[in-house]
Amino acid sequence: MGDQKEMIRRWIKQNRGKGIRLLKKLVQEPSLQGNEGSSQAIVIEKCRELGLEIDIWEPNGTTLLNHPYFVSPRNNFMNSPNVVGVLKGSGGGKSLLLNGHIDVVPEGDKANWEYDPYSAEVKDGKLYGRGSTDMKGGNVALLLALEAIKEMGIRLKGDVIFQSVIEEESGGAGTLAAILKGYKADGAIIPEPTNMKIFPKQQGSLWFKVHVRGRSAHGGTRYEGVSAIEKSMIVIKHLLKLEMIRNASISDPLYNNTPIPVPINIGKINGGNWPSSVPDLVTIEGRMGVAPEETIDNAKTEMNKWLRKLPEIDPWFLDYPVELDWFGARWVPGTIDPEHELLHLLRKSFKEVKETEPVIEASPWGTDGGLLTAVGEIPTLVFGPGTTEVAHYPNEYIELDRMFEVAEIIACTILAWCEVSED
Amino acid sequence: MGDQKEMIRRWIKQNRGKGIRLLKKLVQEPSLQGNEGSSQAIVIEKCRELGLEIDIWEPNGTTLLNHPYFVSPRNNFMNSPNVVGVLKGSGGGKSLLLNGHIDVVPEGDKANWEYDPYSAEVKDGKLYGRGSTDMKGGNVALLLALEAIKEMGIRLKGDVIFQSVIEEESGGAGTLAAILKGYKADGAIIPEPTNMKIFPKQQGSLWFKVHVRGRSAHGGTRYEGVSAIEKSMIVIKHLLKLEMIRNASISDPLYNNTPIPVPINIGKINGGNWPSSVPDLVTIEGRMGVAPEETIDNAKTEMNKWLRKLPEIDPWFLDYPVELDWFGARWVPGTIDPEHELLHLLRKSFKEVKETEPVIEASPWGTDGGLLTAVGEIPTLVFGPGTTEVAHYPNEYIELDRMFEVAEIIACTILAWCEVSED
Repeated sequence: MGDQKEMIRRWIKQNRGKGIRLLKKLVQEPSLQGNEGSSQAIVIEKCRELGLEIDIWEPNGTTLLNHPYFVSPRNNFMNSPNVVGVLKGSGGGKSLLLNGHIDVVPEGDKANWEYDPYSAEVKDGKLYGRGSTDMKGGNVALLLALEAIKEMGIRLKGDVIFQSVIEEESGGAGTLAAILKGYKADGAIIPEPTNMKIFPKQQGSLWFKVHVRGRSAHGGTRYEGVSAIEKSMIVIKHLLKLEMIRNASISDPLYNNTPIPVPINIGKINGGNWPSSVPDLVTIEGRMGVAPEETIDNAKTEMNKWLRKLPEIDPWFLDYPVELDWFGARWVPGTIDPEHELLHLLRKSFKEVKETEPVIEASPWGTDGGLLTAVGEIPTLVFGPGTTEVAHYPNEYIELDRMFEVAEIIACTILAWCEVSED
Repeated sequence: MGDQKEMIRRWIKQNRGKGIRLLKKLVQEPSLQGNEGSSQAIVIEKCRELGLEIDIWEPNGTTLLNHPYFVSPRNNFMNSPNVVGVLKGSGGGKSLLLNGHIDVVPEGDKANWEYDPYSAEVKDGKLYGRGSTDMKGGNVALLLALEAIKEMGIRLKGDVIFQSVIEEESGGAGTLAAILKGYKADGAIIPEPTNMKIFPKQQGSLWFKVHVRGRSAHGGTRYEGVSAIEKSMIVIKHLLKLEMIRNASISDPLYNNTPIPVPINIGKINGGNWPSSVPDLVTIEGRMGVAPEETIDNAKTEMNKWLRKLPEIDPWFLDYPVELDWFGARWVPGTIDPEHELLHLLRKSFKEVKETEPVIEASPWGTDGGLLTAVGEIPTLVFGPGTTEVAHYPNEYIELDRMFEVAEIIACTILAWCEVSED
């Protein structure tokens, strides 16, 4: 196998241009929600070239709607196909699922971008563009790994199931549809932007809204009213205290280097409608982290109970309790046995390629790995070439060297996990 | 004069229907900014009926624009005429200016109104509608006072200058234009909704915006960012401390019953744009009260200096100082000598009509009285039948009994101040 690994390394080195061209083509298609078709067409073309057994389908919104894990702002997936390409093994080996999402988040104000977000400009070893880091660079790494194995004429025992799914950014309807269609495996890798850290545990998250009430009055007699802004400050402090309590109970060493393992982020605040009136309503919106071993329901219950304690701090909340809404997206947490063979092999491959130990941590955000674990019962690792810091932001980029390194590490992991057929 | 007062009282009592009809007509015209014409037409008709010397003009925006006290969201006053009607005296008496604004604030969501805001429905002694309390009821009280005097055949020595001005709700461009046109007097009364309290001192106010910066990050790694929401909580606390300090220095007995004489009201807050991102910008908007003897410039300087102290509380503000904008409306404060004859006479008339001492306080909000005092140098009192509590709110109403009482009190004050001619 040492020879094969060396061949793979050489092939990837010689075919960097091919990998960059593929990533460019993918980034140049703005695969925003509802617009994934043209990007998927490029993926399909590549899967054909690799000789994979291809399955293309638009998820059925009506079926998904009845599933307890379904979360999406839509239930019509016309022109938003999932793509699965299977590299059949000769038998007797373990199967591996390689999952990447094709959807990207909106680019925001283009004025904040140095290059056009869909230009896929390459400069100083970085490829710029929306989706480069999150996560088309990771997807290309998967496809390069498969291409290298094919080009080297290597036959595997176990199946490799490559998935290019829609909707990760809105809560995972694409991956859920693939699971429900029957795609399972003995293990899975998702190359989300981990900056080459390995995440055996993944944080879940869910969005919430809290409505805080006050009582209006003229600003000149503000003492006759009750400011919803001042009351919302109490609520925010209270939520930050809940964050502290929840995190104090986390002793997992995978979170040793994380200042706040499962944060409660207050992302938005809106309230009042006139400078000289006392505001009678403030709405705050945020994201609640869910610990890898926790359930979504448990997190919801904890916050709900905690907010019911507000009257102990301020009797105002007795008559005007805050309202809590769970809305928008949600990502299920996930975890894998720390002694799992796939983790061991990925770690080993990393060490062989990078000549150093990988950083192993718990993820600060959710991925489709939560669904693979919770619904698909597939042990899942998250490991990819992009970086969180630039994901979802202007001037998103990926370091191309990392993409090729991940391609090589994943190719080596595939050989070890699926095993090479001697036929 | 005792007889004359009794005659006025009787006339007003017998002509309640007339007063209510006039108020109904005025409330039924939605005299929102830019749309004052049809309401003013009703006022003009009444002024003609009273035999006043009438002056009608649209203020010249270009001239106003150069005046340091001009504040308005517009500088074109087409179809927004000011109306002045003068009851000429026989000479030798003191002149009195009676000033009321015809503009009303928007009605907001009509769903919150029990009756249509422009229906002028009368129920249980109250007339409902936008502008009833603020301040068409006050204006009708002025016109009734003049009508009673005319109908009783009373001739005055001093002039009475009745003004129905535009733009009070946006900072007083109408009153400023009237001052600049030369309308001055020895004293002035404005029947804004004081709930029949007499305000010899009027609070000024101005609107501000504060932009508070943070540093964005993914909500899952929120510790890598700096929350502009958390920083804005520091800024709000800091502003409330400024309010405390400013109010601690106010010892005026006219503020004895006012919990916060010159409040700093935080009316609006907006920040962040995604539940799972750390917000990098929060904007708060508010109203700063200006003490009657204070200048607008002094208030601005105090707040500006105070916000410059934020780095002492949190070094974040050293690198990311908050930005302070003064925007929108502004009302100049005003004050009258506590021994002023006009105050004495109004007080006396109040006592005669109501058989009790009036409450004398400093106003919790600004009126055009600030401009009359500061620019027109006219000693001004604010005293009217409406109530602040319902001004600017849904289901605004006025108690009709109060309107007629104010009409009588003002008529009596006119007789005493302008003096009755013996001719």
